Amino acid sequence: MNKAIGETNWVIPDGYIPPESSGSLLSHESICVLNCSAEDATLTISIYFEDRDPLSNITYVVPGQRTKHIRTSSLERDGEHIPTGVPYAIYIESDIPVVVQYSRLDSTQAENALMSTMGYPVRQA
Amino acid sequence: MNKAIGETNWVIPDGYIPPESSGSLLSHESICVLNCSAEDATLTISIYFEDRDPLSNITYVVPGQRTKHIRTSSLERDGEHIPTGVPYAIYIESDIPVVVQYSRLDSTQAENALMSTMGYPVRQA
Amino acid sequence: MNKAIGETNWVIPDGYIPPESSGSLLSHESICVLNCSAEDATLTISIYFEDRDPLSNITYVVPGQRTKHIRTSSLERDGEHIPTGVPYAIYIESDIPVVVQYSRLDSTQAENALMSTMGYPVRQA
Amino acid sequence: MNKAIGETNWVIPDGYIPPESSGSLLSHESICVLNCSAEDATLTISIYFEDRDPLSNITYVVPGQRTKHIRTSSLERDGEHIPTGVPYAIYIESDIPVVVQYSRLDSTQAENALMSTMGYPVRQA
Repeated sequence: MNKAIGETNWVIPDGYIPPESSGSLLSHESICVLNCSAEDATLTISIYFEDRDPLSNITYVVPGQRTKHIRTSSLERDGEHIPTGVPYAIYIESDIPVVVQYSRLDSTQAENALMSTMGYPVRQA
Repeated sequence: MNKAIGETNWVIPDGYIPPESSGSLLSHESICVLNCSAEDATLTISIYFEDRDPLSNITYVVPGQRTKHIRTSSLERDGEHIPTGVPYAIYIESDIPVVVQYSRLDSTQAENALMSTMGYPVRQA
Repeated sequence: MNKAIGETNWVIPDGYIPPESSGSLLSHESICVLNCSAEDATLTISIYFEDRDPLSNITYVVPGQRTKHIRTSSLERDGEHIPTGVPYAIYIESDIPVVVQYSRLDSTQAENALMSTMGYPVRQA
Repeated sequence: MNKAIGETNWVIPDGYIPPESSGSLLSHESICVLNCSAEDATLTISIYFEDRDPLSNITYVVPGQRTKHIRTSSLERDGEHIPTGVPYAIYIESDIPVVVQYSRLDSTQAENALMSTMGYPVRQA
């Protein structure tokens, strides 16, 4: 199995990096991408906010036949990161089909809470 | 990227505003909407109950190129809100395509619990 | 809005009724159904197990313009219920289109844990 | 109802076996499969990693008219298992249509956390 599978455009409306952690696990979000193809997938990520213009053109490469579980806190463009404690949304465009899932671990209140959903695949008109 | 993407009609069958909170985080639900278009998206929201007629025609505007994470407790029509502690369902109609995700934080029992799912996109016949 | 929307056949592979509860909330699962039509929707539910034949033909009515958040522990046929502590799967057939979401609250370990997902809509060939 | 329903190819990008447990429940993941057909479904599972080649051709049989909630820690090929504490992704190919959901229970921090999502069904071109 080394064909590209999935879709090229994915949306995750509920982005949020919890500003606090406690206990042994760090609060974080992950964008989990599977690239089944033999070639690299180059992602172009845009971050949408509630009250300002998007932060666009963040790039990230997922090698062929690999998965990457990308911490959203690690994404940056020209030194700008996604702020913590702020509601935002994620748009991902890949140059080849991939599959995207989103998960969040929140350890604000000592014990951890988890949520996960597949990204929403945008089918091109 | 400033075209409208997604769908215009979305359903979330499992709505519930937890009546109690404890610890540092407030129990709440969010309807997270991404509007990638350059224009405003006007949402018309209907709330369905187990034992009475729907509360319809709640409106909410998501500006162009913005996301809104809408607390369901903030929705109202003529002063009427969604009651807490009552199972309900959500129907969202938007005048242009958007993407909708639903998340709930429940902090009834001291530590927080999270759940999330994409809305169900209704494809028009 | 009073047309029937959604699909008639839905699957939830991960059913499980936690056998224990602690704290103020009871461990439970809900099948959350929205019936936007003006007519009743009659559901026919089948329960599949790991090691025995299915429990079929459980019926449940969701009135028109209503949602029902059905506790799986309340489902029965001829006095037979879904056992607790046993992995199972759910197949729902409705006579008119509806939308189905599945959620579980687990309070085995004092604090509550939540999970939710849309059902899987089976498109008829 | 004993026809095969669902899809033959499913993806779960966010695989992770938590290395630690505490309290009364064991941290684990499950791949929950429903086979509505009268015949066996033979699954061929591939595991993708962040930094090495995939572990392919793990097989698993789900009997007809049964569900299996497969612990990922139980999967093996030639004695090789999925390591704990490592991000990975799952690709499932079935010889007949099935429906796949993924759930994780994390009990690292004393209380349990749950997440669940339907698998991503790959529609064949």
